[in-house]
Amino acid sequence: MIPRTIERVDGAIRFIDQTLLPERLEIVECTDIERLAGAIRRLEVRGAPALGIAGAYGVALAAIQSEEQDLDAFLAEVSAAADYLRGTRPTAVNLGWGIDRVLAAVRGAGSIEAGREAAVAVADAVAEEDEETCRRIGAHGAALLPENARVLTHCNAGALACATWGTALGVIRSAVAAGKTVSVTACETRPLLQGARLTAWELAADGIPVRVITDATAAFLMRRGEIDCVVVGADRITDDAVFNKIGTYMHAVCARHHGIPFYVAAPLSTFDPGRSETDVTIEERGREEVAAFNGKQTVPDGVGCTNYAFDATPLDLVSGIITETGVLLPPYDSMPRPRHI
Amino acid sequence: MIPRTIERVDGAIRFIDQTLLPERLEIVECTDIERLAGAIRRLEVRGAPALGIAGAYGVALAAIQSEEQDLDAFLAEVSAAADYLRGTRPTAVNLGWGIDRVLAAVRGAGSIEAGREAAVAVADAVAEEDEETCRRIGAHGAALLPENARVLTHCNAGALACATWGTALGVIRSAVAAGKTVSVTACETRPLLQGARLTAWELAADGIPVRVITDATAAFLMRRGEIDCVVVGADRITDDAVFNKIGTYMHAVCARHHGIPFYVAAPLSTFDPGRSETDVTIEERGREEVAAFNGKQTVPDGVGCTNYAFDATPLDLVSGIITETGVLLPPYDSMPRPRHI
Repeated sequence: MIPRTIERVDGAIRFIDQTLLPERLEIVECTDIERLAGAIRRLEVRGAPALGIAGAYGVALAAIQSEEQDLDAFLAEVSAAADYLRGTRPTAVNLGWGIDRVLAAVRGAGSIEAGREAAVAVADAVAEEDEETCRRIGAHGAALLPENARVLTHCNAGALACATWGTALGVIRSAVAAGKTVSVTACETRPLLQGARLTAWELAADGIPVRVITDATAAFLMRRGEIDCVVVGADRITDDAVFNKIGTYMHAVCARHHGIPFYVAAPLSTFDPGRSETDVTIEERGREEVAAFNGKQTVPDGVGCTNYAFDATPLDLVSGIITETGVLLPPYDSMPRPRHI
Repeated sequence: MIPRTIERVDGAIRFIDQTLLPERLEIVECTDIERLAGAIRRLEVRGAPALGIAGAYGVALAAIQSEEQDLDAFLAEVSAAADYLRGTRPTAVNLGWGIDRVLAAVRGAGSIEAGREAAVAVADAVAEEDEETCRRIGAHGAALLPENARVLTHCNAGALACATWGTALGVIRSAVAAGKTVSVTACETRPLLQGARLTAWELAADGIPVRVITDATAAFLMRRGEIDCVVVGADRITDDAVFNKIGTYMHAVCARHHGIPFYVAAPLSTFDPGRSETDVTIEERGREEVAAFNGKQTVPDGVGCTNYAFDATPLDLVSGIITETGVLLPPYDSMPRPRHI
């Protein structure tokens, strides 16, 4: 059984340092938001729902630790911490969603002590709801898989991207729990290899058959008839597109070409209604993620690398969006709004 | 100026050890076919045309070094060496083509001494013709590129895959030489990163603008309108499909989806007429190429990896095949035969 990806224990946040997997399972205990922000930037904590929880816990941590005696100064300090955390990663909408839920609770509390209590209560609720949400997503998604399902997934939308269970991998876990036979093809997901390192690790830990391929192998396996469907997560869903790990769009195009269903599994907190693809900033990360690996140079000096962390898949390539309230189907005329906003 | 990828100097074969690039340019001098076979297996020498040259030189080396005094025994020894070299890699047709050209010359010579001379002469001719072939491919292909061309390529079909100049990169070099403005997006090409390591290195050495991306980024750049055409090489072209580095098929599917031309640049020696996709063995390489990098584990213990080195792209996704005798266009009713067979 995998430990929870991120949880609060008294005044500390504990999380799995995902940069060390699969070689080492290490739990970090963190009591300041600078450390938490660093963990988000370095992807020790990553995955859209987990970022929502991290954002919520981070604001709660700021509220707990503030030494201000004046309510306005307290609110200003907590708000500044929220802005600081919000700036760590731009693409996943859940991070800001988790931050805003706790911030609203603090602001509505009326006193410093009540603000602290509300922050902790709402942050804990965000984490608890996440598991329930994932299990509902899993149940809705499991019904879409055939009895014998060979599922392709990309990056990690698993227990490690949430509090536990997972979104895309939650669908797979729920299908297995429902008695279906599922085998998973995990794309390694360059440059940071979350598929090879994390998806393979957590599925193997649960005894679910999994193999790893390079990202560019996926289309050829579709051609060979080895893939029944694609299930991925999402970092943000606008009215016209799904933002997810770079490579998701490629899988969607290739799945369409082969007539293979392409599903997105994501909680309602991932939706960003009223926005479109062009409104969203795609995070570009550093050259060094592509140009070297474990100290070995792979790109010549002086040659640049374009390193988008995410891409956008237009909804017309998406066969269904699996949420905790059901499966949305094309033509996606009416998109849901996140709860609590 | 890059040194020649592979050449004969008296009784030795000199080649660039491509596993060391881009960190180090090192020329290996090799005087026995066991060392050469190892170099082919470990991809110190790789690329379809370069494998043709390596195969030709390898048979010549066996002829030069044989100590047999009896013609039949001499021919048997050279034939055994040819079979040994042929078994090093199964997918690229050029390797066998280069081996067979020299072997036929040895067998037709009538004496051991004449066999040795013929072997060296034909092997040298294979290498010399390769440069001329690449320059013709380049000239035909350059005419297909727009005046300002943003070209995507995969793996390395460059000078390092041939004696010099290159096939896909030969098209780019010829376009630049003809005064066109070309910038190249090189896909890194997992798992062995020939695009990041080799294509970027040789284009930068020639002053041609190049950037590196992860393989899964290509489709998204097509969507963003940053790619005008795709040009790749080939390891084998049957009557119905192009075999090339894994990932080529994905680019072809995505190029078609975006209405972007997808060109294959390859000498006639790459054609395998009368054969179809199902006749060809796709080389599967070891798990360790995907599961670890430079000593760092990236896939958990016990999780398998599917590591096809090549894929097959059906000809209906190919906009044109650029050869030394001109550009073949759909519907490819009549495929050319390799010369000298």
